[in-house]
Amino acid sequence: MPGVPGAAGAPGAPGARRGRRPGAPDTRAAILAAARERFAAAGYAGTSIRAVAAAAGVDAALVHHYFGTKDDLFLAALELPVDPRAMIAPVVAGGLDGVGERLFRVFLQVWDDERNQASLLALVRGLAEPSGQRLLRDSLLQMVLGPVGRALDLDRPDERLALVASQMVGVVILRYLLRVEPLVSMGPEELVAAYGPTLQRYLTGPVG
Amino acid sequence: MPGVPGAAGAPGAPGARRGRRPGAPDTRAAILAAARERFAAAGYAGTSIRAVAAAAGVDAALVHHYFGTKDDLFLAALELPVDPRAMIAPVVAGGLDGVGERLFRVFLQVWDDERNQASLLALVRGLAEPSGQRLLRDSLLQMVLGPVGRALDLDRPDERLALVASQMVGVVILRYLLRVEPLVSMGPEELVAAYGPTLQRYLTGPVG
Repeated sequence: MPGVPGAAGAPGAPGARRGRRPGAPDTRAAILAAARERFAAAGYAGTSIRAVAAAAGVDAALVHHYFGTKDDLFLAALELPVDPRAMIAPVVAGGLDGVGERLFRVFLQVWDDERNQASLLALVRGLAEPSGQRLLRDSLLQMVLGPVGRALDLDRPDERLALVASQMVGVVILRYLLRVEPLVSMGPEELVAAYGPTLQRYLTGPVG
Repeated sequence: MPGVPGAAGAPGAPGARRGRRPGAPDTRAAILAAARERFAAAGYAGTSIRAVAAAAGVDAALVHHYFGTKDDLFLAALELPVDPRAMIAPVVAGGLDGVGERLFRVFLQVWDDERNQASLLALVRGLAEPSGQRLLRDSLLQMVLGPVGRALDLDRPDERLALVASQMVGVVILRYLLRVEPLVSMGPEELVAAYGPTLQRYLTGPVG
């Protein structure tokens, strides 16, 4: 995400959290609040930078200035603890060979890191509500798996990525949310041995 | 579930839903309410027929009379539209050969039936709350997959069934709750071709 040069509301900006300087309201926070609302209500595809800007009462250029692209804004709105694009890059860099195992290793690495779990689980708990369902679906398919499909130039990417997503979401629910044993106690190597071939088959095996 | 001979509250009992006859209060409903509360708070393992009876202010024998075994009571409390034990019987009757495919076919058959979806999805939406998480975990592992493991005499049943559960829950979330395409449009044969081998490997392949 691009830095926010000296903006009101940026971490460390003097006085950012107390009162408002005339002419410099907490624009960044207003944009972020508008973005959260729009993405939750209309999903990723149904949200434009322009609509977020209008809802926040600012110019679209200012949204770009503070947040970069629509993907950047979406990630900021989700408050994800990691940038999935950065995590996915080395997964796809190795090509199709062994990609299932690499993808599952990165997935474990992100989820097993306790600094990430609380905010990731908050996203998953949103499952009970339509707006949370939309955010979860879009964040997984758009931000995590979409780039995998494009980088690997998969045939039938939508089928393959939905299959992959269904296995990853199931692990999230059982291992991290429900904490079902022995899934919680199984070490990374055991888990990779179990799930790596599944993801590999979904990504590169026969489909349809 | 055993029939409830002429009990107040039983379907079709004359006047069951209007007023209460002296000496025959709606005991069945009281037991069911107590059971729901206990199972949600303490899970399947932490709930006894005796504790449910005490909470409902009745004798344990009466709970057995109305509901049968603890499994029967748990199923009644969950308000599942189907009895998973009846669905699982033909899956395991064929032995290990092709069991992954048979299990996935039955799973699809239950979930694709619109008469079942609302109550099954209600159970899944409980994921956001600890009590709902407990019910979901116990219903899946205790009532659906536990019998599979025992009937097939699996080695390392807990690992295998947790792997199976993780894939089935992922399909539930993506196909039925989030309604992610193309998973929703894929026909049963396509889905069985994709997921059957996964479940088969989890049940019979190398583990750990």
